[in-house]
Amino acid sequence: MPRSRRAKAKNGSASAAARARKVRVLLMDVDGVMTDGHVYLQSFPGEEALELKAFHSHDGAGLKLARIAGLRTGVITGRESAAMTRRARENGMEFVYQGREEKSASFEEIVRIAQVSEDEVAFIADDLPDLPVLQRVGFAVAVANAVPEVKSVAHLVTKRRGGDAAVREVIEFILKAQGKWLAAAPKARA
Amino acid sequence: MPRSRRAKAKNGSASAAARARKVRVLLMDVDGVMTDGHVYLQSFPGEEALELKAFHSHDGAGLKLARIAGLRTGVITGRESAAMTRRARENGMEFVYQGREEKSASFEEIVRIAQVSEDEVAFIADDLPDLPVLQRVGFAVAVANAVPEVKSVAHLVTKRRGGDAAVREVIEFILKAQGKWLAAAPKARA
Amino acid sequence: MPRSRRAKAKNGSASAAARARKVRVLLMDVDGVMTDGHVYLQSFPGEEALELKAFHSHDGAGLKLARIAGLRTGVITGRESAAMTRRARENGMEFVYQGREEKSASFEEIVRIAQVSEDEVAFIADDLPDLPVLQRVGFAVAVANAVPEVKSVAHLVTKRRGGDAAVREVIEFILKAQGKWLAAAPKARA
Amino acid sequence: MPRSRRAKAKNGSASAAARARKVRVLLMDVDGVMTDGHVYLQSFPGEEALELKAFHSHDGAGLKLARIAGLRTGVITGRESAAMTRRARENGMEFVYQGREEKSASFEEIVRIAQVSEDEVAFIADDLPDLPVLQRVGFAVAVANAVPEVKSVAHLVTKRRGGDAAVREVIEFILKAQGKWLAAAPKARA
Repeated sequence: MPRSRRAKAKNGSASAAARARKVRVLLMDVDGVMTDGHVYLQSFPGEEALELKAFHSHDGAGLKLARIAGLRTGVITGRESAAMTRRARENGMEFVYQGREEKSASFEEIVRIAQVSEDEVAFIADDLPDLPVLQRVGFAVAVANAVPEVKSVAHLVTKRRGGDAAVREVIEFILKAQGKWLAAAPKARA
Repeated sequence: MPRSRRAKAKNGSASAAARARKVRVLLMDVDGVMTDGHVYLQSFPGEEALELKAFHSHDGAGLKLARIAGLRTGVITGRESAAMTRRARENGMEFVYQGREEKSASFEEIVRIAQVSEDEVAFIADDLPDLPVLQRVGFAVAVANAVPEVKSVAHLVTKRRGGDAAVREVIEFILKAQGKWLAAAPKARA
Repeated sequence: MPRSRRAKAKNGSASAAARARKVRVLLMDVDGVMTDGHVYLQSFPGEEALELKAFHSHDGAGLKLARIAGLRTGVITGRESAAMTRRARENGMEFVYQGREEKSASFEEIVRIAQVSEDEVAFIADDLPDLPVLQRVGFAVAVANAVPEVKSVAHLVTKRRGGDAAVREVIEFILKAQGKWLAAAPKARA
Repeated sequence: MPRSRRAKAKNGSASAAARARKVRVLLMDVDGVMTDGHVYLQSFPGEEALELKAFHSHDGAGLKLARIAGLRTGVITGRESAAMTRRARENGMEFVYQGREEKSASFEEIVRIAQVSEDEVAFIADDLPDLPVLQRVGFAVAVANAVPEVKSVAHLVTKRRGGDAAVREVIEFILKAQGKWLAAAPKARA
């Protein structure tokens, strides 16, 4: 898993694992991170169009494990849908900020509510609107399908693509860095 | 189709085909096994979000053939949806256990109802919550997209991925091991 | 586009193009041929589950062109859905036989109604339930994702997979064999 | 990004970048361009079948950026759905012409309303029904998944496929050619 040159230059010897060890709250974008970036709009009788989202079951099991291991999770997204609301609930996500075109304000509110420092937050991102938050967190992660501008400021680029268990990969990375994976894995629930 | 080292060490000379010959009940997980792991949630008018699942037609034809050939089938899954209920019915699946976060109790109930031994059961799996059942059955199968922990305890890893006809591959493997495939295939129904 | 050994042996020198030249009615299976084989079931409020299908726009434009060029088209499928009914209508398909687990009777009815010989019919197939019809038609086509049993009796195996414009490929093959493609193509409608 | 031989022959030294510099209105087909060509039809209770479309979030962010940078956008498509109507609205698209089997009339109306010359219009296309418009615009773009007839008349063929951020690639190409990308990118909204 490559670290970008910018990250190396700026952060010196702090490795991705060292950064992951400090994480207490894992935040993420939704489209392109929990999904593969496809925004499905379903036409309904009466001219309405509502959103369908394709999440991944391995991410779901990972998010439940994160909760069991004491890692708090949440999303900050520009879109809003009943699909995301249900998914956050079934995965035990604590911070659910939807319909936020400007993500920094949501980030600041979460940091305040969670009573953590920005260094203790990880953020998983894929596109330009994620940059303002990504550049502030202690552990900045880009998915494999992120745009170049996002990858260039990330401390870690995942091997997996968004919607294909990239979130699970990050959770395993953090829990392993914190020495919690082996104890947590047998507690996985469907 | 590779067998894991653990399987070799533990099970000695019992090959995957030998194990398949004994199978009378074929159970499976749903997400990542009958599907590719994507959990589609559809927003409906009034804030409700319901599940859509993408099954594969070749799995469907295979499950009907299994029934014709006398192989009983079923699912044990942590999620619950009308989609899965309909699919089980149209594919002639006998054991349908949905909404089961702890899968072992369902497995024990099926073994009791079906009046078979654990050696006569096969289970197809992809993720950590499947491990407790997978480690008990006579014929443990991991799909190509399973996590490493699941592959390492499987007697057989399929070539095909979940949702891309992995279940059909297992059914063919079992019916061929039992010498029933050539007689069953011409009876396939759409 | 490879022809199978069986086809060569059985049909001697009649090439795929020679067979295509005679075709007046193009029939096809739906799942795995007009789609990639995924059967999407959508849960609705009230425990109902209805089908969603993913067709391809290039197939749609091709089917409209076929009609303009005088090639009649239709489907014979084991499943039944409002989705398929609408798609057949918008693509100008004349023969729509859904919910037919045994396909031969539908085939015979179409041949009778269309007043053509079996030699003048093409059928596009992907799985075992298609075999009884596939073995009777003058021009038997398997999609790239067909099971081996189907490919082995086909006169033509498409380069493209079902749901990824395999039907368009067959229509172009037939209209080019009949010398009608260059005149038809500019008449394509969206 | 290859230019076709025909384009070279016909247009001499006018490079794709030179053509992009003049663009004031970016039009596009929908199926196969904003999507990967899959036409999803969802069965509803009561025999109705309505359309679902899979757009890409990176295209959405790109279309918003285009608007911020003063590039006007729109669609001309043979199909019609509430899904497309909503997507056009949330992406700030100005010209929305749905249900148009003959695209030339819509194109002429847009040119007149927008008060631009045909040289100042770009069109992104994938299939035969797009050709009449594609051959008139100043900057003709084919997506990677376009049919050969469309690629052969395009000034630019995208690296990305429709539905996988091909539209974003074209917007970046145009804004970079116009020297507007670096100023626009930081204004991206989710």
